[in-house]
Amino acid sequence: MTNWVTEYQTSALRMEALVKETLFEGQSDFQKVGVYDTEVFGRLLTLDGVFQTSSFEEYVYHEMISHIPLLSHPSPKQILIIGGGDGGTAREVLKHSDLESVEMVEIDGMVVELSKKYLPQISSALNNPPANFTLTIGDGIQKVKDAKSYYDLIIVDCSDPIGPGEGLFSGSFYKDVYNALKEDGLFVQQTESPFYHRELLAKLTKDIKDAQFPIVNSYLAYIPIYPGGCHSFTIGSKKYHPQTPVRKAAPEWNLKYYNEALHSGAFALPNFVTQVLEGNLK
Amino acid sequence: MTNWVTEYQTSALRMEALVKETLFEGQSDFQKVGVYDTEVFGRLLTLDGVFQTSSFEEYVYHEMISHIPLLSHPSPKQILIIGGGDGGTAREVLKHSDLESVEMVEIDGMVVELSKKYLPQISSALNNPPANFTLTIGDGIQKVKDAKSYYDLIIVDCSDPIGPGEGLFSGSFYKDVYNALKEDGLFVQQTESPFYHRELLAKLTKDIKDAQFPIVNSYLAYIPIYPGGCHSFTIGSKKYHPQTPVRKAAPEWNLKYYNEALHSGAFALPNFVTQVLEGNLK
Repeated sequence: MTNWVTEYQTSALRMEALVKETLFEGQSDFQKVGVYDTEVFGRLLTLDGVFQTSSFEEYVYHEMISHIPLLSHPSPKQILIIGGGDGGTAREVLKHSDLESVEMVEIDGMVVELSKKYLPQISSALNNPPANFTLTIGDGIQKVKDAKSYYDLIIVDCSDPIGPGEGLFSGSFYKDVYNALKEDGLFVQQTESPFYHRELLAKLTKDIKDAQFPIVNSYLAYIPIYPGGCHSFTIGSKKYHPQTPVRKAAPEWNLKYYNEALHSGAFALPNFVTQVLEGNLK
Repeated sequence: MTNWVTEYQTSALRMEALVKETLFEGQSDFQKVGVYDTEVFGRLLTLDGVFQTSSFEEYVYHEMISHIPLLSHPSPKQILIIGGGDGGTAREVLKHSDLESVEMVEIDGMVVELSKKYLPQISSALNNPPANFTLTIGDGIQKVKDAKSYYDLIIVDCSDPIGPGEGLFSGSFYKDVYNALKEDGLFVQQTESPFYHRELLAKLTKDIKDAQFPIVNSYLAYIPIYPGGCHSFTIGSKKYHPQTPVRKAAPEWNLKYYNEALHSGAFALPNFVTQVLEGNLK
């Protein structure tokens, strides 16, 4: 009997991947968690039925959420990752050797443990990390609320705005992020699909501007397991313009997606995306 | 009872869209043809079970296969469209008012008739077209073989390399295209997904180079109904470099995707795509 893992990308659109082996299906304190070995995506992590990351294409998301903001800042030192329990973002951030501290706060310890067990390619950085890295299982929203003018970069590597990720898509959270950043700090968040989540993207863009970030820019990347394959990230920045990198990626990072031309190219948005960001949802 | 239309993007990955109404299902002389009214994509055309175009997102494909090559050429006059039976490419090409002739050769008359009937937004140009436009139901491969140094631009708006589209992905076809173009001509072809069709993309890139095109470049666009949402187009050009437009789109074209920054940005390829184009399939 064949077994398919299904994501309802909308109530009227679904993607199904053939499963070779179900490695884990269970319920954490926060969400339903699944790990599958699939034919096309290799190891696949799902949260509340939503495809999160896979060994086939995880590098796109993790490189693009990390290196775009890091290489837009001339000398980032204090980094906070909210979420990112699979460890892929930490792996990419820690390729930058001149960071003083990298703190990661993931709310769901089960995601971390399952990623260590079943997604070793993605979670590699969580085993024997360098001394400047700390992982806390806890509430990223509270962590941000408690910080004042401390971080150079906050990476919000969250799931969809349902379940535990919901509070990370709110105006009050963006105000706390603003206050937690240094006067030249910036933050980045994964912000869903411009094809399918237009109201969300319009609203959060407005909320980030309302939080007094003078520079707000979105960029796109090709992520085949996400709805439409077109995924947006949004940056709120106090000083630096993120479209043009001020530093270069190192060849030994062996990046599979990011490069300098792509950095700028990812900010060249289709007309309809620009309209969505301006609140025009037609 | 709910009804879903399914595409097997690979044998182990499928996308399913909820159908409000099945408008047509039948067999032409060349392929199985389906037209559906779907919740998410609106009107959807399928050929041999493969999602071809939909009213939800057709503008991406049709703008990107037309305006990138047209605006890379300083004064294109003779244009040939091979395939493109839904009419969307003709619609975009005919926005350029200074063309002397636009010839379209589609092998499957049923696709044209069904598009006129069920996809009016896409096929609009095929009703009452301007005097410089001709549509022939026939064999595009033969049309190209018969032309010598005649066209400024050939647009190969084909389906997948199965069924009637197969001969459009061959070295001998690219040699015929080369001979059919003027000494400063160029051609463009849709060339599938860099995530899922790596061998095909590597092979056709080599074949186009072997056909003596001195300039061969691929670019990408976000097409949510295609596998991975990441679709490639490849240009073979005798003289003009397509990465930088030499003319501008007109505001009255009301483009939803293409703009000047995006034109160049679409050629900024992820590292793994560059590797695929160089024949590195790991």
